[in-house]
Amino acid sequence: MKSDYKFHYDLRVRFAETDLQGIVFNGNYLTYYDTAWTEYFRELGMTYHKFLDRGVDTVLARTTIDFKSPARFDDIIEVHTRVSSIGTTSLWFDFEIYPKGEDRLVGAASSLYVCVDPKTLKKIPVPEWLRSVIEKFEGKELKEIQRT
Amino acid sequence: MKSDYKFHYDLRVRFAETDLQGIVFNGNYLTYYDTAWTEYFRELGMTYHKFLDRGVDTVLARTTIDFKSPARFDDIIEVHTRVSSIGTTSLWFDFEIYPKGEDRLVGAASSLYVCVDPKTLKKIPVPEWLRSVIEKFEGKELKEIQRT
Amino acid sequence: MKSDYKFHYDLRVRFAETDLQGIVFNGNYLTYYDTAWTEYFRELGMTYHKFLDRGVDTVLARTTIDFKSPARFDDIIEVHTRVSSIGTTSLWFDFEIYPKGEDRLVGAASSLYVCVDPKTLKKIPVPEWLRSVIEKFEGKELKEIQRT
Amino acid sequence: MKSDYKFHYDLRVRFAETDLQGIVFNGNYLTYYDTAWTEYFRELGMTYHKFLDRGVDTVLARTTIDFKSPARFDDIIEVHTRVSSIGTTSLWFDFEIYPKGEDRLVGAASSLYVCVDPKTLKKIPVPEWLRSVIEKFEGKELKEIQRT
Repeated sequence: MKSDYKFHYDLRVRFAETDLQGIVFNGNYLTYYDTAWTEYFRELGMTYHKFLDRGVDTVLARTTIDFKSPARFDDIIEVHTRVSSIGTTSLWFDFEIYPKGEDRLVGAASSLYVCVDPKTLKKIPVPEWLRSVIEKFEGKELKEIQRT
Repeated sequence: MKSDYKFHYDLRVRFAETDLQGIVFNGNYLTYYDTAWTEYFRELGMTYHKFLDRGVDTVLARTTIDFKSPARFDDIIEVHTRVSSIGTTSLWFDFEIYPKGEDRLVGAASSLYVCVDPKTLKKIPVPEWLRSVIEKFEGKELKEIQRT
Repeated sequence: MKSDYKFHYDLRVRFAETDLQGIVFNGNYLTYYDTAWTEYFRELGMTYHKFLDRGVDTVLARTTIDFKSPARFDDIIEVHTRVSSIGTTSLWFDFEIYPKGEDRLVGAASSLYVCVDPKTLKKIPVPEWLRSVIEKFEGKELKEIQRT
Repeated sequence: MKSDYKFHYDLRVRFAETDLQGIVFNGNYLTYYDTAWTEYFRELGMTYHKFLDRGVDTVLARTTIDFKSPARFDDIIEVHTRVSSIGTTSLWFDFEIYPKGEDRLVGAASSLYVCVDPKTLKKIPVPEWLRSVIEKFEGKELKEIQRT
């Protein structure tokens, strides 16, 4: 539900992102979610370049994506984004997409990002400053939730 | 495990599919899985055009994707593909990706495809001929499995 | 030169659009130019859907693209866009890309779009209303220029 | 004309590469040409990794692309590829695309690649070994041709 989210990023669907079914090709949703990840952290004052400067990058380890209803060329979609839990080395993000100003769910995703060293791409702990900046924005403590 | 699969499709990673981390961008795996879907059915004698001729298309409704280890430009990867269960209107596909000739898992996906009318994109039942052609290839009955 | 253009559209480079060289993959510039095409016409009051409603679509017939300097992830780029000449069935677009607020040319393109029937994709004449709306915006008559 | 080429690479059009017009999106042709570049050099015994090991990379500086007739999902296309001239720091490639076994031209491109240092992306001379391996394959001396 939109009200679960404090942040959303608006995107307009590009011609290139559609396929012969006349709707957005499924793989492009991962680009939308990835772009929303970037903008979520920009909102929190943390650009990707600041992550790298502090020796932190992330990689997507797992995602579950639901495709609920189609988005089409020239639609403006809202990508609602939040961090739902923080573990030792990882962050769970939730995403929901709606057409701008509508309540029809287009898609949703739950995605596990793992913190890694930018050079080696090896796992590292979630830095304390990152946990802190996220919890401040989300307005609550974000404990690790057990998921399959 | 590779031995769970009767079919795999080989792809070579394209330059365009990498990102600034030097590895395949996560969204491109959905293109790989989609391409393997097409080739799986070609192996069974069913091109996409034959699906349409028979009044059947499918849309991806849900997918869970694991990203286990990176694939890089010019790697040849094997996309192992199978149907694991068939429901009233839907098919579950499993996929596993390995570098050619290796046992290191690059990624895996479990994907729910729903049969739809090609014109309206509305849900339709899995046709009997489709169930039959898949079960014959997989060599077993494919009952619906309850999944979350 | 920026001053040759009355319109530009700002885009932020997405992570997915970079490649292993750490810069925007060349094919993505065609998506940027295509997106700017759409936004140029939106500025003129003509969405793509209005084109279709009036029985007009366009296809790209020829483009020359110069890649002058790299764009990188998270850069905001200005895609300057104009129609430079109008023929019997075609429109020439010019594009120039600059990083936001800078004068360093990132890339440029000169692109020939042909008007087609949306259903058959066969060539049709440039409609008079389209010529008129463009010439009004550009502030001059746009005669056909002979190009190779 | 196909007979101008000693090399071609076959690709099957992917679902993800189509757009709502039901044909291959124009930007994807740059991926096709780029992939053919890679395969051309593989045919000559020069993988991209060998280029890097020898301190050479290339970037696309300019391309002119013609879109002649549509390619559609599941089509197999032949991407004919050759080097047509070699300059001090650059190589001109010609490409022509045909549906497999047909003479209908789908598209063509003429592309200028500049040799660069892989680390700095700064221009470097075309190495003698590269000129030599290409001229041997093409069966003739490849002088620089003046082009606009």
